[in-house]
Amino acid sequence: MRIAVLGVGLIGGSIGLAARTRAGASVRGYDPDPGVLARALALGAIDEQAEHIADAVAGAEVVFVAAPVGELLSAVMQALAAAGPDCVVTDVGSTKRVLARAGADERFIGGHPLAGAETAGVEHAREDLFDGATWYLTPAQGSTAGVLYERLHRLLSSLGAQPTAIDADTHDRLMACVSHLPHVLANVIVGQAASLLASESPKRLPAVGPSFRDAARVAGANSAIWTDIYMSNSDALIAGIDELTARLSVVRESLAAGDAGAITAWNERARGEREELLGPGLLGAGAGAASIHELRASVPNRPGVIAEIALALGRAGVNIADMALSPSEDNRQGVVALWIGGDEQAALAMQLIAELGIPVAQA
Amino acid sequence: MRIAVLGVGLIGGSIGLAARTRAGASVRGYDPDPGVLARALALGAIDEQAEHIADAVAGAEVVFVAAPVGELLSAVMQALAAAGPDCVVTDVGSTKRVLARAGADERFIGGHPLAGAETAGVEHAREDLFDGATWYLTPAQGSTAGVLYERLHRLLSSLGAQPTAIDADTHDRLMACVSHLPHVLANVIVGQAASLLASESPKRLPAVGPSFRDAARVAGANSAIWTDIYMSNSDALIAGIDELTARLSVVRESLAAGDAGAITAWNERARGEREELLGPGLLGAGAGAASIHELRASVPNRPGVIAEIALALGRAGVNIADMALSPSEDNRQGVVALWIGGDEQAALAMQLIAELGIPVAQA
Repeated sequence: MRIAVLGVGLIGGSIGLAARTRAGASVRGYDPDPGVLARALALGAIDEQAEHIADAVAGAEVVFVAAPVGELLSAVMQALAAAGPDCVVTDVGSTKRVLARAGADERFIGGHPLAGAETAGVEHAREDLFDGATWYLTPAQGSTAGVLYERLHRLLSSLGAQPTAIDADTHDRLMACVSHLPHVLANVIVGQAASLLASESPKRLPAVGPSFRDAARVAGANSAIWTDIYMSNSDALIAGIDELTARLSVVRESLAAGDAGAITAWNERARGEREELLGPGLLGAGAGAASIHELRASVPNRPGVIAEIALALGRAGVNIADMALSPSEDNRQGVVALWIGGDEQAALAMQLIAELGIPVAQA
Repeated sequence: MRIAVLGVGLIGGSIGLAARTRAGASVRGYDPDPGVLARALALGAIDEQAEHIADAVAGAEVVFVAAPVGELLSAVMQALAAAGPDCVVTDVGSTKRVLARAGADERFIGGHPLAGAETAGVEHAREDLFDGATWYLTPAQGSTAGVLYERLHRLLSSLGAQPTAIDADTHDRLMACVSHLPHVLANVIVGQAASLLASESPKRLPAVGPSFRDAARVAGANSAIWTDIYMSNSDALIAGIDELTARLSVVRESLAAGDAGAITAWNERARGEREELLGPGLLGAGAGAASIHELRASVPNRPGVIAEIALALGRAGVNIADMALSPSEDNRQGVVALWIGGDEQAALAMQLIAELGIPVAQA
């Protein structure tokens, strides 16, 4: 099989590596940066360098467009213009409706692998980058190009990915909800907390529980990437903000009415939804979220202390489902929150941590 | 000094232990549960058991009311009725304006230690529970009872805490913002994601980035505790929801207007606020958040793997500022996100993890 990869960074390079070694494909690559293209060749991510898009695409059966969001539509349209009638063109962009115009062409099927980061370079490319990863495909409604879809699906499976069809609108709303909206909320909540401490200098929060730290972790993510992401999915993100606002106003009404029953029912529903969406966590025993225990250990702030805890638990076969660290105000010590599945495992973890001389309590 | 502790669970018991051993105080305890009271005596958390509130309070110079939120006001009023004219009465509840009525009495000073959990029992009580913890105090505006405040402040310092005066309204808004609102948002966002996957069964999310997992971690927290917390601080929480909604609508406007400059400015502001509020993280070198690197390592899902990574980094003196785990869909492997401060430390961490044979990339 002949494939073309347009843009050979981390994702394009990993596609090339996996396609060559796992699918026996011959890969022709193009990148606007000749240095990047040469590195891709040196690293074995491509078989041949192409001088321009049309050159790369000529004779290909599958074309992957792995260009940055801002240049994506233009690159896809150029690829379609150069591609043969039996060639499938796909992309790896994180929002899909921006390519609606390309979608009018039955040879185009949008794609989005949930792996890697758009910024990292080809030197980080890996043959196994897509192992087990969901790879969304957004075929146009009513498309008759079944043979093209089937070819792309089979190729992605051989790269190690799990191809999953989804309509472009649902995809973009899902990404808005599970990625873009959490970033927006993180930005908003740090602004709100900062304004409450407006009269203080420095505005350092006391060592509150880990919930705020979790909520704020991604605040102020790299603007060079995130402004583009927000703008390219702005309408789905706006719809997500509107839905969130409506959901908040329902909670607000229950609070204003003093309706404890409604608040409890809403909270219990959220518990079930969380478990269904995220599963029981990184657990060995497959225990349910209902039996997950949160332990809090007070640790001195020095390298190695996390290792001591993790090692003691690992040696005893206790799996850590999740972990969050919070330093104390003076940065001399901190609290490590650990989530452990299963009553016995949690009790064992408590004992092991206490034996290290580290104060620990169940939260 | 004679002190009384009303309610001898984790917090009351820890106050008793610390007051006896560190402040040389004599502690009389009361608890509605005689079994708990007997355990507190056996564990050395109190010197004497009292039969009722008035008995415990008689002759005390400081009274700590550590009752559950629902019984707090009644217990405080009983304590004030029994206390002498030179006795200071305080509490440890997580919302403060509910005690406004008690605040009319100059002998009452509200308190809230940021340590421990209200549910855990006296068997988890520790003398060092409050070491380094902020302990908020909410003296009434214009109170003239300076000598009582000074006595309480000195006692809390000797327990290891950092007493910090704050007005009750700001305290409750701060708790709404840094604790209650993150819990509300977690509940709301899992509901929103679940509704997007309404047609799927099971509604399992693909392995998205850690931002959703962080945002959803506390969703559906224990209703037996959280319904009371939400209801007891409902007006500050409503105000928090309203402010958040207003802040979201500003972002919404920038998105709708396609104003990338405004989005970038807002995001950069959030970065600064996050760093100011939370500090540089659990770091050795005091590096700023701007130089924090996020690494992602793909690991098999088995006990001990976190330890291997943490140990390798700890041995080399690399401090892990933060860590989040995400299992893959099939639960066979997962991604560990690690935040490391400083360019050199991050590069060293990449190298050490790669040397373990674990694929790692910078996000």
